[in-house]
Order: sequence, then structure tokens, then C-alpha cells
Amino acid sequence: MGERETNYLSAEAEAALKCVSTATLTSQLLKRGFRNTFLGGLMPVRPELRMVGYAFTMRYIPMREDLDLVPEDNFTNLQRVAVESVGPKDVLVIDARGDLDAGTLGNILATRMQVRGAAGIVSDGGMRDAFEFADIELATYIGGVHAGRRGTRHHPADLNVPIGCAGVLVMPGDVMVGDPDGVVAIPRHVAEEVAHDALEQELLEAYLLKLIQGGSSIHGVYPPDEATLNAYRQAARNVSSS
Amino acid sequence: MGERETNYLSAEAEAALKCVSTATLTSQLLKRGFRNTFLGGLMPVRPELRMVGYAFTMRYIPMREDLDLVPEDNFTNLQRVAVESVGPKDVLVIDARGDLDAGTLGNILATRMQVRGAAGIVSDGGMRDAFEFADIELATYIGGVHAGRRGTRHHPADLNVPIGCAGVLVMPGDVMVGDPDGVVAIPRHVAEEVAHDALEQELLEAYLLKLIQGGSSIHGVYPPDEATLNAYRQAARNVSSS
Amino acid sequence: MGERETNYLSAEAEAALKCVSTATLTSQLLKRGFRNTFLGGLMPVRPELRMVGYAFTMRYIPMREDLDLVPEDNFTNLQRVAVESVGPKDVLVIDARGDLDAGTLGNILATRMQVRGAAGIVSDGGMRDAFEFADIELATYIGGVHAGRRGTRHHPADLNVPIGCAGVLVMPGDVMVGDPDGVVAIPRHVAEEVAHDALEQELLEAYLLKLIQGGSSIHGVYPPDEATLNAYRQAARNVSSS
Amino acid sequence: MGERETNYLSAEAEAALKCVSTATLTSQLLKRGFRNTFLGGLMPVRPELRMVGYAFTMRYIPMREDLDLVPEDNFTNLQRVAVESVGPKDVLVIDARGDLDAGTLGNILATRMQVRGAAGIVSDGGMRDAFEFADIELATYIGGVHAGRRGTRHHPADLNVPIGCAGVLVMPGDVMVGDPDGVVAIPRHVAEEVAHDALEQELLEAYLLKLIQGGSSIHGVYPPDEATLNAYRQAARNVSSS
Amino acid sequence: MGERETNYLSAEAEAALKCVSTATLTSQLLKRGFRNTFLGGLMPVRPELRMVGYAFTMRYIPMREDLDLVPEDNFTNLQRVAVESVGPKDVLVIDARGDLDAGTLGNILATRMQVRGAAGIVSDGGMRDAFEFADIELATYIGGVHAGRRGTRHHPADLNVPIGCAGVLVMPGDVMVGDPDGVVAIPRHVAEEVAHDALEQELLEAYLLKLIQGGSSIHGVYPPDEATLNAYRQAARNVSSS
Amino acid sequence: MGERETNYLSAEAEAALKCVSTATLTSQLLKRGFRNTFLGGLMPVRPELRMVGYAFTMRYIPMREDLDLVPEDNFTNLQRVAVESVGPKDVLVIDARGDLDAGTLGNILATRMQVRGAAGIVSDGGMRDAFEFADIELATYIGGVHAGRRGTRHHPADLNVPIGCAGVLVMPGDVMVGDPDGVVAIPRHVAEEVAHDALEQELLEAYLLKLIQGGSSIHGVYPPDEATLNAYRQAARNVSSS
Repeated sequence: MGERETNYLSAEAEAALKCVSTATLTSQLLKRGFRNTFLGGLMPVRPELRMVGYAFTMRYIPMREDLDLVPEDNFTNLQRVAVESVGPKDVLVIDARGDLDAGTLGNILATRMQVRGAAGIVSDGGMRDAFEFADIELATYIGGVHAGRRGTRHHPADLNVPIGCAGVLVMPGDVMVGDPDGVVAIPRHVAEEVAHDALEQELLEAYLLKLIQGGSSIHGVYPPDEATLNAYRQAARNVSSS
Repeated sequence: MGERETNYLSAEAEAALKCVSTATLTSQLLKRGFRNTFLGGLMPVRPELRMVGYAFTMRYIPMREDLDLVPEDNFTNLQRVAVESVGPKDVLVIDARGDLDAGTLGNILATRMQVRGAAGIVSDGGMRDAFEFADIELATYIGGVHAGRRGTRHHPADLNVPIGCAGVLVMPGDVMVGDPDGVVAIPRHVAEEVAHDALEQELLEAYLLKLIQGGSSIHGVYPPDEATLNAYRQAARNVSSS
Repeated sequence: MGERETNYLSAEAEAALKCVSTATLTSQLLKRGFRNTFLGGLMPVRPELRMVGYAFTMRYIPMREDLDLVPEDNFTNLQRVAVESVGPKDVLVIDARGDLDAGTLGNILATRMQVRGAAGIVSDGGMRDAFEFADIELATYIGGVHAGRRGTRHHPADLNVPIGCAGVLVMPGDVMVGDPDGVVAIPRHVAEEVAHDALEQELLEAYLLKLIQGGSSIHGVYPPDEATLNAYRQAARNVSSS
Repeated sequence: MGERETNYLSAEAEAALKCVSTATLTSQLLKRGFRNTFLGGLMPVRPELRMVGYAFTMRYIPMREDLDLVPEDNFTNLQRVAVESVGPKDVLVIDARGDLDAGTLGNILATRMQVRGAAGIVSDGGMRDAFEFADIELATYIGGVHAGRRGTRHHPADLNVPIGCAGVLVMPGDVMVGDPDGVVAIPRHVAEEVAHDALEQELLEAYLLKLIQGGSSIHGVYPPDEATLNAYRQAARNVSSS
Repeated sequence: MGERETNYLSAEAEAALKCVSTATLTSQLLKRGFRNTFLGGLMPVRPELRMVGYAFTMRYIPMREDLDLVPEDNFTNLQRVAVESVGPKDVLVIDARGDLDAGTLGNILATRMQVRGAAGIVSDGGMRDAFEFADIELATYIGGVHAGRRGTRHHPADLNVPIGCAGVLVMPGDVMVGDPDGVVAIPRHVAEEVAHDALEQELLEAYLLKLIQGGSSIHGVYPPDEATLNAYRQAARNVSSS
Repeated sequence: MGERETNYLSAEAEAALKCVSTATLTSQLLKRGFRNTFLGGLMPVRPELRMVGYAFTMRYIPMREDLDLVPEDNFTNLQRVAVESVGPKDVLVIDARGDLDAGTLGNILATRMQVRGAAGIVSDGGMRDAFEFADIELATYIGGVHAGRRGTRHHPADLNVPIGCAGVLVMPGDVMVGDPDGVVAIPRHVAEEVAHDALEQELLEAYLLKLIQGGSSIHGVYPPDEATLNAYRQAARNVSSS
């Protein structure tokens, strides 16, 4: 099991990440050279909840009968250890190899994580009892729905090691942000500035969107030319000074 | 066409299956050695309806122009024969090889099945007029939505033979149970006891979930140790005697 | 960039296409020998909106770093040119090779298209900001949701050339019709008569559905025999003369 | 188990099918309206052997533990029954749903079929002991190689019923022809004339290919115009009269 | 149809490309920022032939019955136009959307291209008569083997426009290089220097490989440190001065 | 990086595994309850070489630009560390998530492993320079061929931890056996007896195959009844006493 010491973002950065979209975040990450940061193909079980937290990773590999079709021991089964280890602001991120032919977690364990204050669950495998997650206040993103037990397909092999989830590298402690479109993994060392710049980008885009809605063409507006930027800065200054 | 003589479950078992989840049922089946009983990747058209019924199977194979791009005769086309054969408690289960490039049934035939009292439709292929199923009181689970006619992809080859549907073996007469997560096929010869034990499992799990929601860790609770089980039995006794 | 001169349907045909289903349209097209006209696997972002319009096609090919990871110029980037070219009744149809690993368009450009009066968007790739489309009054059908930028996967290569979208050939000017099931592409030269016959088919089927709902078997009704057809014509005549 | 009474082709037709290519046969079938007759994605284990025979079909469905992880009884297990039923000119065609995660047959049973005079094996699933087929004089086409036992994935459900194999409808008794490219299924009722016309087409094409090799453009040659056809007929006449 | 004016590489560059591997070329392209230049998943029909040429592109889209199930006219059917247009050093590159359910070309047309002096064929679709390509002296790379006619799946829509082939952007005139591993597309404007540097890299690697074969560890050797590089330069100088 | 202490099999067991087939081994493993031990979909680069060795595992996850598009350091890059760590009887088993869009190793590193005495390479990803492996005396099994560099898709994350490869759980030290069909992973703790029993099974099957080749039906022979077994034992005794 890997070591993990979470290094929290500033309160301002966490607040910014709660309101920007994953689309904006991928744009900011692309500016820094990261092309592949959106976990593709996941669906939100509770799309009305936003998620911001720090990756607590769990790695599944294919099951083997002598390891996984046996009674589960909460002290040695790493899935169970994980559930009793996640704490506030943690997002449990499960690498299930995109295998949708079994569940990777169920509603009782998820409830325990909610009680422990977890910030979310992300799995590129299936989820059992998915419809019962309506009663759990926990942002959850899954590859699909499957009622089968984990042990028929998956063996929990590791906690808090770097993993791939939905095609994206996730390090323990990476910042995981979710909105109704899905989930983005932000490398920890760029997260503070990405959060800041993403918020700035969204404020500008909100202004540009209003121009477009008002009938402007995209020329000079999207992307904005100097005149549009100046008008925006002027408008922003007026707001902040009012 | 295969022979089929449905052997109904007890009323108690049918009632139990109406309220337990498919996740619970796969757990019970796994205990009996059946690993692969959940029909993966299907979606409910009417998730608010629960389904319990007996499999009436229909097998599709790839179309051939001289058989399937011709006018349909209700007396020889096996799809039509099936629709006029299903009766109360029957679930029409269609093996469409997971091919989503055409519909496998439409709203008029589904309406006829509803009038005949059918308990549901399960298809691992596409469904035409899917949005019109909102008006049909029939639990329906499909692989996807496709407006194309069956004949462009599928030839109905058999009724009431063993089939594979969504990767699971389904015998005519198997017990088909659906909830918002999807569908499980219970081999007929174990269905009575599975229904009974599934209900017991869910009652216990409801109790355990309350403990978890109240702040218990999973240790000693999930799975429950002897003390937890005794407390549960005591609580259950009090209820039944009140 | 291809030439394109839209040849509009009659007002009657456009009206008919607004109320018939894509399932009915595929049946009418199959009668004329066209088997493959439904764009499979797309999902409506705004299922409550019906779409009728004329294809304005855009072709994407795989990205290349020197072309697509550079600032976008609204005058040379064909995606941007497209957005400022679509007009009323146009449906932007994007051939993204079914690649769901990036977005193909976002909410600001879509808003601009709405302001320009476009009739819809169809893409077999991903869509950014998909949840923000709830605020855009534009029928939109997509292959999936992905927050990543277009440039990480796609290069816009052509406008208004024949394309494949979701497995179907689409010519510029083809009639694109969408309902909650998805999208059908009607070759322009048969669209007028398809629209007419589809409406007739639906009127008849509404009558047949009522018979089925009232307890009729499908024999003699679906497909209808001469007696049923006569009864229908009589009923229809009474309505029109009343 | 279905009934099956093989209706052999003429000796001339069988001889013709032994020397024409599957590409030519799909062209002849397309002329008669059959678009989908080539079993895609199969590979020949013994590409140097040509195959002509009559389909003896076997249908596999997903395994179930109580049926398939038990000792095999040669009298009830349909796979074993099939092996002891095929006779001269029979091609065993296995519908394994394209599932490559187990073998569908092994070298001992294949050897028995060779001794019984079978004409070939076609499976859209995996094959065990594939490399040992080098010692078996039997044209064999498979979806892939897999050393796992059939019972871990497949249950033999039926013999001599219509099946789908590699996406193509195959009726018992259909004419199965294989060359190094793969396998084509010819509907029995058109096979005699298809065989005849395919041979004619190939003779003509051999002539055209010589012209192309000699430097002719394809204009007037491929497809041939009347002058080319006359030259061909003249050349062919000279041969037969010499 | 796009315009195309081939701008040939120097004789030295062409010669270099004939002997370096596609693996070396992708390394050189990656150094220049191009990550995605190898056409994945293709197989060589004639692995013993090396290919160097200039892309002549052809774009296929899904077929439509009124366009593609009609007799082929060599003057209007773009596939036929292409065959009679390719000349020496041309490589016909076909974008078939990775669809393997039909052939994209057959042996007679390929023979014509050979006679015209073409340098190769690359298709991400299927190939008819694949086994007959053994008789055609033409480097050919295909997605798979399929005996079915092009018209059942594909419509030739364009010549010499930018395309995607096997997931890679290919411009008309791009340099296509093939070895037994497959095909790489080199953007024309970097091809001269890539060819030069690739040859240098291979000469160095041949030296390093000998060291490794002789028992050196990779430390200091792969990648080479300054001492190893000096030794290599010395060895190379001795050779050239001898 | 995980710990790894290889516990070698007896010389008899290693010898047995060198001559039995992977098909026989999966049968023996299935008898012990292990259903999923064959690494599906791999192809041998050198099918004429048999492989027996002990798993040295390497885990790849998706690349990230700041980690993988940088110069490789032989002391920190785990792929390089692995190459300089494998020793005699080691099989390097790479978990590349089945991603075929880049190479996972090339010929120079493979050559170094050969010099170090490695027993083989197994990767469920692509292989660069695959055709150059003809010159390396090393049993190698790969998911496919791809000339692209590892860093464009993969980050080496771990050595000698449990992994999944081609859908099968592989523990460090598991016994990896390869034949022309592919590779089987034998859990270390059952490998000694599996090797023994597999050899016995093959000797018996060789006898049975001779009976089948001589014209016996499978009844009483495959599976063998008591009479056949007695005859076999008698024959075997004669051989050993001669």
C-alpha cells in the first residue's frame, strides 16, 4: 500500500474549483501541456452535486477464485480497508480497468464513506445498487451499472498508488473535480494556479456569452480581441468597485 | 419452436422478488455457484416499474434478404407468433446478439403484449419508438434505442429455446426479475429458495445500513459478527411480536 | 469547401416531418430501398425538442499538433467558419469518426448558432459543456459527453461535403429529422414524398393502436387487412366531413 | 435438435466451388440481392486447403455452472453428439457469439471429425490446440486462438437449427465454401446457379487480368465493354475447339 | 476532388527512408512534437516489401443504395478514377473509417495500379482477394481481409483531400513509409530532415545494439553517454576513412 | 516497487511444463477451480520457442506529459530498471491495459534482457520493432504491433506487484508457460502438481488420439472408460518395462 500525505489547496482554490466547469479545467490543463485529463465515458449518479476532493486511489486487477470467492475480511480486504480509511475531502478513485461486468462497490460501503465525510467516488467499473445512491449524499461517477458482486471480476490489489482510471493517470492526492459532464484529474502541482486561472476564464466567458446571446458574431469576441478584453476589464472594474 | 410449461413460484416467493434488489439476487445466486446471472448493459425504459415474471424466449439471428425484407405474416413470422402467445406473468426475452443497429420490437406490438397481461420485455438489441413506451405499462429493458426496422438486421429463428441474452444463459421458464439497475435471470430450480433468502438478506441489510448511517464502522457490522446478528434477531423478534 | 444550395421542402412536408417519428421515417425509407438511414447510438441533449432541418456538414479528421494545438483563427478554422455560416433551418452535422475522446463543440459556439437561427446540431463525437445546453434552445444530438477540447483529437477538414455520421451517409442539404429516439437522414430527392407518406402511415397506425389498446389481436389489424383499412377510411372520412 | 436432410449439389457445381474464390461468390450472391454472406473476421488454420461442404450447425449460448462445469457425457452433451454425427461433406459451423474467451473445440474431437470424413470446421469463437491442427487434414476457420475449455464460456444448446456465425445467417444444409480469405455461406436454393455463374465470372476475369497485366487501362476492360467481351468469347472458342 | 502537386524528396532522403524502420521514424517525429503518426492495427500483405511514396488519398463514406448498388462507371466512380490516376511513387491511402465488413479494393484494380508504377496501397478497411496479392509486386497494408464488395459498405466520396486513416491524419503528398511493422505518415514539410536524422539514429543504434549484444548493460549505452558517443564517432570515422 | 523472491519449481516440473500445451494446463487449472488463466488475444512473435519462467511484473498506466515526454533516465525510469533487473528464468510480464496504440518495449531493451538470460516477454500492449525480434532468441508474446514510443501512451508505475495482463491476474513469481497458442499463468502454489498432472494427462491423451486416428469413436475413449484406461496402463507398463 502506497504512502499518502494530502497537501490541501488554498480555500480560494477549492472554492474556485467548486464553481468552474470541467470543460474550463481541461482548457487550462491543455495550456500547460496536459492533453488527457478528463475521465471519459463516466456518468454521474448524482449530477446535481459538484465534487472537489483529493484522490485516494484503489487498484483492482482481475479476480482469482482462491482470493476473491472467499468471505471478506474487513482487516485484510483492501476494498474494506479503503472504506475505513478515506476521510474528509477524499475522493475514492477506483481503477477497474473499465470492466463493466460486475459492481465495484455497493450502497452500504458508500454510505459508510459518506458518514466518514468523503468527497466523492469515481469508478471506471460498474456500480451495484446504483439506484439506491439517490439516498446517499455523495458525488459518484461510474462507468456503468451492474448488480454483480465485485469478487466475480475484481481483486483489490493496492491502495494509494498511481493508477489509470477511465484512461487518465491519477496520482494519490491529485485534485478530482466533478460536474454534470464528468470528472477531471488535476495534477497536484499545477492545481492551485489552474483553479485560479479557470475562474478567471469563466468570468470572461460569461461576459462573452452574454455578447453572443445579444447577437454579436464570434469575430472579435470568441476568442476576444483587445477591444473586447478592454470592455470586459472595464465592466469587471465597475462591478468590483460598486 | 420449443415446448414450455411454466411452473409458477409460490405467491410468497413472487412477492419477495417484487421487493428485493437485483444486487441482492446476484449475491444469493453466487452463494449457489452461479456467477453470471445479471444481464449487463441493459437500461430500463420504465425504471419506476418492478418486474417479476417467467422467461418466454425469442431468438434472433442475422437477417437474410429473402426471409426478412418481405411482408410480415402474423401466422408464420415468429416475432408475431410470440406476441400473440405471451400471457400473464410472461416476460418476453429477446436474444438479439447485442446488436444495436436496428429495433427488435416497436410500440404497437408491445401494447398488444401489455393487453395480453405480459409481465415485461427484455431485449439485448435496440428498441424502436422507445420514447412512446412511456405510455405502455410494461417493464421494459433494452440494449439501446434504434428506430430502424427489425428486418434490416434480425431474423426471428426460434421461440422458447434456451438463449443467451446480454451474456447470460436464459432458459424458458427462468424467473426474470428487474429493478432500476437492470435484470437478473434466476434458474427456475433455485428460484424459490433464492427468493426466500434474498428477502432475509435484505431485511438484515436494512438493519445494518441503519447502523452504518448512525455512525458504526463496518467492523463487526458489514459483514455482521455474532453480536450484531443477535441484536438484529432481537430487534426483529420485537417487531414481529408487537 | 463544398458548394451548397439548399432546396427547401414544401411547408406541408416540413410540418409533417415535425410530427412523425423517426421510426416511421425509417419504414418509409426502407420501402424505397434505403436500409441505413438512422444515426445509431446518438442521444438527445434536449429530448423535448423536435428537429427538422437541412444538413450543413462538417468533417473532422484526426488532429495534428502543428494544425490544432495553435490559437484558433475565426477566419481560417473551418469549425469557426461553419458556426458563422449556418443559417435558419440549417442543421450542423459533424462527422467526428465516432471518436468520443474529446468534445466537438461547446456552449458558446452553440449559442451563436442558436442566435443565427440554426435548426439543430448532430455530432457523432463528444460534446463539451453538455449540461449547459439546457439553456440553449437548440435540438442537439451527440455521441457522448466529453469536456476535452476539440483540438486534442480533431481537425476540421471540410465543410459541406458528403460525410458519414454515426454510420450513415449524409449529403449537404439532406433532410435531418430528430425525435427523442434520435436522428434520421432523408436523402433530399425522396424527402417530399417520404414526409407525405409518413404522415399517412402515422394516422393509420394511431387508429390501429387504438384497436390494439381496445383488445384486438394483431391478426387482421397489424398489418391491417382490407376490412380494417376500410373501417379506417370510413372513420377518417367521417372526421373530415364533420 | 433440428432435422436435417442434405440435398447435395451436382458434381459440376461442387467442382466449380472448389476453384472459385470467396470474393467471386459474394459478387454472385450480391447480384441476387444477398449482401451479407461472408463470415467476417475468421482466419484459416490451414490456408492451403480449400473447403466445400454443407452446414451442420451447432449453437452455443453462455455457460451455466450446473450445466457446463460437470463431466461431459458423450450421449447428452450436444457438442459430443455433433462430433459423432457429422459425416462426409459436412462442415461443422459453430455459433459461439463471437466470444473468443475460450476454445470451442480441440484437436481430439477435430481428429475424430476428420476420420468421419468431415469437410471442415467453422467457428466464430476460439480454438484450443490450434497449433496442433497442422496435423489434421481438415479445413478449419476460427475467430481466434484460446487454450481455455469450452465449458468456462459456452453451453451447446442446439444442433442443426438456423444460426448466426460471424454475423451471417447459416441454415443447416447451406453450402459453405472456404478459401484463404475466409468463408462464404451460400443459401442452398441458389447455390447451383451461383456455382455455375461464379466459374464463368472467374474465367472471364482471368482473361481481363491478363489484359491489365499486359498494360491495358481499366477502361473498356474492367468492367468489359462489348468489344472486350467479343474478344474473350473468340479466345475462349479457340481454346475449346483446339 | 482536391488538387495535388507532389513535391518529391531528395534522392538521399528517399533512399534513407527505404532502409530505416517505422519505429525510428516515429521517434524522430515525436522529437518534433508529432505523437500520432503510426497507422495502428494494419497488417502487411507483403511484409518482405518496403514502401516509400507519396500519399494519394481516397475517402470512403457509408454506402447508400442508389449510389453504390449500381453498375460502376469508370469515369464517374471515384475509386476507378483513382486507380487510373495514381502514378509512380504514389501510395493510394484509403480512409474506410476502419470498417472491416467489406473489401475496399480487389486484385484486378491493384494489378492495374502496379502496372501504373504505384508505390503502395494503404487501407484501414478490408481487402478482397487478399491471398491473390501474393502475385502483385506492390507493398500493401490493410485493416483486415473481407471478400465482400466495396459497394455493400462504402461510397467513394473524394480524392486527394486530407483524410484520417487508421487514426492518423494524412495529407495528400505526405510521405508514406512502410516496413513489416506497418506504416507511418510523415508530414511533408518535415520529411526531408526526418529522413536524414532517422538514418543517423539507426546507424548509432546499430552500434549500440552490438554493444548490448556483446554484454554491455544499458547504463551509459542506451541512451548513450558522451563516452559512448565519442567511441561511436571514432568508429564511424575509421570506417569512412578506410 | 514490490518485493520478489522467486521460489523455483523442481527440475521435473520445469521439464514437464516445457513439453505440455497451454490447453492441457488450463484443464488442470480448471480442475482446481481456476477458470481464467489463459492470457487471451496475445500472439507469439517467435512461435517456435517454448517458454517456461517466473513472472517479473511491470505495471503501466496512462502517460502524463510531464512524466513521460522527458528524457529517459535508466536509474529512475522503472522500465529501464526492470530490464536491468530481470535475470535467468524471469519472464517480464507487462500490464499495458490492453492498449495497442503504442509500443511497450523495443528490440534493444529486449536484446539486453536476452543477454541477461531472461526466459521471455509477455505484454498485452503493442511491440515496437516487432519484426526485428526474429533475431532475438527470446520467447515473446504481444498484444499487437505498434511502432510508436512507449511514452506517448504509457507510464511505468510499478515493478513486481500483482497485475492484470490480458485479463488474467498475475502475481510476481507466478509460473508463466507459453506455446504457439499463447500464454498461461499458473499460480505458484499449485504449479508443482499442475505440472505433474498435466504431463500425465498429455501422455494419456496421446494414446487416446492414436485410438481416434485409428478409427475409434469417442464413446468409451474420450473421455476414456475403465476399459480404455486399463488398456492404456497396460501399454504404458509395457513401454516402461521394455
